[in-house]
Amino acid sequence: MNEFLLIDQIVAALGEVASGACVRIGPGDDAAVSITPPGMELVSSIDALVADVHFPAEAGPALIGYRAIMVSASDLAAMGAAGGFILVALNLPEGNPDWAAELARGMAEAAAELGLSVVGGNIAAGPLAITVSVHGFAPAGQALTRAGARIGDDVFVTGRLGGAAAAVARGDLASCQLPGDLDLLSRHYFHPRARIREGVQLLGLASSAIDLSDGLLQDLSHIGERSGVGFDLESPSIPVETGATLAQALSGGDDYELCFTMATAPPSLDVAVHRVGQVVSKPGIRLDGKPVTPSGYQHFAS
Amino acid sequence: MNEFLLIDQIVAALGEVASGACVRIGPGDDAAVSITPPGMELVSSIDALVADVHFPAEAGPALIGYRAIMVSASDLAAMGAAGGFILVALNLPEGNPDWAAELARGMAEAAAELGLSVVGGNIAAGPLAITVSVHGFAPAGQALTRAGARIGDDVFVTGRLGGAAAAVARGDLASCQLPGDLDLLSRHYFHPRARIREGVQLLGLASSAIDLSDGLLQDLSHIGERSGVGFDLESPSIPVETGATLAQALSGGDDYELCFTMATAPPSLDVAVHRVGQVVSKPGIRLDGKPVTPSGYQHFAS
Repeated sequence: MNEFLLIDQIVAALGEVASGACVRIGPGDDAAVSITPPGMELVSSIDALVADVHFPAEAGPALIGYRAIMVSASDLAAMGAAGGFILVALNLPEGNPDWAAELARGMAEAAAELGLSVVGGNIAAGPLAITVSVHGFAPAGQALTRAGARIGDDVFVTGRLGGAAAAVARGDLASCQLPGDLDLLSRHYFHPRARIREGVQLLGLASSAIDLSDGLLQDLSHIGERSGVGFDLESPSIPVETGATLAQALSGGDDYELCFTMATAPPSLDVAVHRVGQVVSKPGIRLDGKPVTPSGYQHFAS
Repeated sequence: MNEFLLIDQIVAALGEVASGACVRIGPGDDAAVSITPPGMELVSSIDALVADVHFPAEAGPALIGYRAIMVSASDLAAMGAAGGFILVALNLPEGNPDWAAELARGMAEAAAELGLSVVGGNIAAGPLAITVSVHGFAPAGQALTRAGARIGDDVFVTGRLGGAAAAVARGDLASCQLPGDLDLLSRHYFHPRARIREGVQLLGLASSAIDLSDGLLQDLSHIGERSGVGFDLESPSIPVETGATLAQALSGGDDYELCFTMATAPPSLDVAVHRVGQVVSKPGIRLDGKPVTPSGYQHFAS
């Protein structure tokens, strides 16, 4: 199995998601060619998932692939971007075609659910890592950012938090091979749902937004820094997932839910929304009136 | 040095290339936002460079960073795309801020030379690898591809070939720390020049194009497959770099020059152009009349 045959297998496994409305040239040339719809801006992000840092290498490849797309696309959701396309760079320790095709099938499933196309990629020999570059479209000038939170706005989160962190703490994620193996907590880890649809619904309504990848406190602190504000949170209103702890919901990471600020009540979304606190002028974050230090996942933490 | 301080150092090292004409939101939010100029399509590619597979980890970080951008942007050149932006995912074994800042300075130098902006990225703990997602603009419907070579066209290459392969064969690349350490051959390896400007000049003229990353024979075979043609090459006309062998020029890889087909004489480019053969109906590649098997760099070659 050489590099080019392996690429053929992966492209075959992608199936229909290798094409799409915005795609003029998909996999197979030096680069892909896409069309940005009139009146739209391109929203772009890149994420790397390293084996045994961001996912257990022994888990099922379809689960790993699904998770890689959802985790990366979550950044599009945070900006209110949708549609668009994905490039994937796979560093593989060996050219195992079955493993790679299963990974691609998991990616294709996630991309299809989100309405994204997978238009190209790269394969290299190396320690197992998956890097995903995601690109979506937002109406010109309207993308959500971390910078617009205003004093008096309420703070909201989608879904329930801490489930993925609880699954990590349980220590059995490497045994998950197929979607049928997932329970409530491991589903949070392997099958998060990037909130693309919800992000779009918040355009023009939310004053700021971020996706929850490193834990609510740490991610909220980024909104605080960029918006020049602070937050008062109330612990009874934090939507802690069943089986998770409040600490996991606050600082566990890997939630891939949206956190956003708004002056009014949020619209009805496909997922439950919870008000968790308020934007205030005093910098930093208080929980039930007491200052908390944002802690969450950091690479190279000293 | 935690993850977020490391990112601040890198963004500071990028300087002015973090912004640009097409950039509305650069580093610092969940995603970057860019504007595709009217009448243009977006051309996108991703490349991964793994330590001690694609570059010697002990070489100078500024050289590694410069090379990473040029190698990746070479795919834009092959499509005739220019302008645009770059996302970088760094997997770093440790959070060494000096090393990362030097890497970023090398990247910034290369991006500035090419007129590209570096608008975002990702940092993760992991075995050293650099993944670069590059994006440029080409006039709608005009991007060069591998698929248009016509029987009777001439085959051209830019520059001189085999220099980087000769440098690899010499075995002293890890000792190169700064641009001043480079001689003719190691300059081919660490300081290739993505032929962005030349690719744009070939729009509407070349019938097909590819960049030479895996060696002339292997890369030309991709044009052959996609265009349904073959090639007759003449060895005396292959522009072998001084100090390299004909075999290195044909199959060594890492040249990052352009190979293109055209029915007429090519325009005057900033780099020397050499006619190396002709497009013919018979599939495969002949060198001086004898069939040659395309060989070049392949991951997972069996």
